[in-house]
Amino acid sequence: MYEELEILLRRLCFSVKVAGRKVLRDFDITPSQFDMLQKLFFKGEMRLTDLSEELGITKGTASGIIKRLVDYGYVKKVKSQVDKRVYNLSITDEGRKVIEEVINKRVEYIRNIFSVFDESKKKSFLEQLKQLTNIIENK
Amino acid sequence: MYEELEILLRRLCFSVKVAGRKVLRDFDITPSQFDMLQKLFFKGEMRLTDLSEELGITKGTASGIIKRLVDYGYVKKVKSQVDKRVYNLSITDEGRKVIEEVINKRVEYIRNIFSVFDESKKKSFLEQLKQLTNIIENK
Repeated sequence: MYEELEILLRRLCFSVKVAGRKVLRDFDITPSQFDMLQKLFFKGEMRLTDLSEELGITKGTASGIIKRLVDYGYVKKVKSQVDKRVYNLSITDEGRKVIEEVINKRVEYIRNIFSVFDESKKKSFLEQLKQLTNIIENK
Repeated sequence: MYEELEILLRRLCFSVKVAGRKVLRDFDITPSQFDMLQKLFFKGEMRLTDLSEELGITKGTASGIIKRLVDYGYVKKVKSQVDKRVYNLSITDEGRKVIEEVINKRVEYIRNIFSVFDESKKKSFLEQLKQLTNIIENK
């Protein structure tokens, strides 16, 4: 049963992810640029070192990706409040729009596939997801 | 409601993904190496060009990642059946083991978080997931 749950969840998660990323073509950004932008959106500003660590890539690779995101105007360098000598990376309003568009697309896709459920089934699924994420967050 | 579903699903998917990737430390492979290996595991052998396109990275970047995966013995180059002059990339048995370990870890994690549900709730959740993935695959 858990093997099956894993396969089904994997398929669902993958298809939602792909649906959201279709937007990226309109913004002309690559998946690795998107991963970085998403990290800055959800985690707030951070140093290049921490960002590359979080994504499991070298500082050199991260630096190349960031350079392009800065050129596009999606990311900016800001002086650290903690140590004025170092810079943090921060997502711009333009960058936020990219992520918000991706999230909108995901919501639209979810609305679409969940239309197969009647209202009470949607509610029960939502409740079950809430319970699961509560478990996850209290781990 | 759909906004909430999106957030909850995103959290669930992310935590399952992270749980699986914890295994990668034991194999000393990076997330981008893993993404490539996973692609070859699920999609079968393919050309470097197609692989880089699927992952949205340049051929140069893909080539560097593949070189390391070949060095580790997780990927091998095989002559294409269609055109003997070109090589396809194929996952080795050792490479398969990495992906299988990740999947095992994901299954274990799912078993763990779903322990909050009783049997009938697990079954209903599984059934709902089946319906959703049917919708996805018939789109």
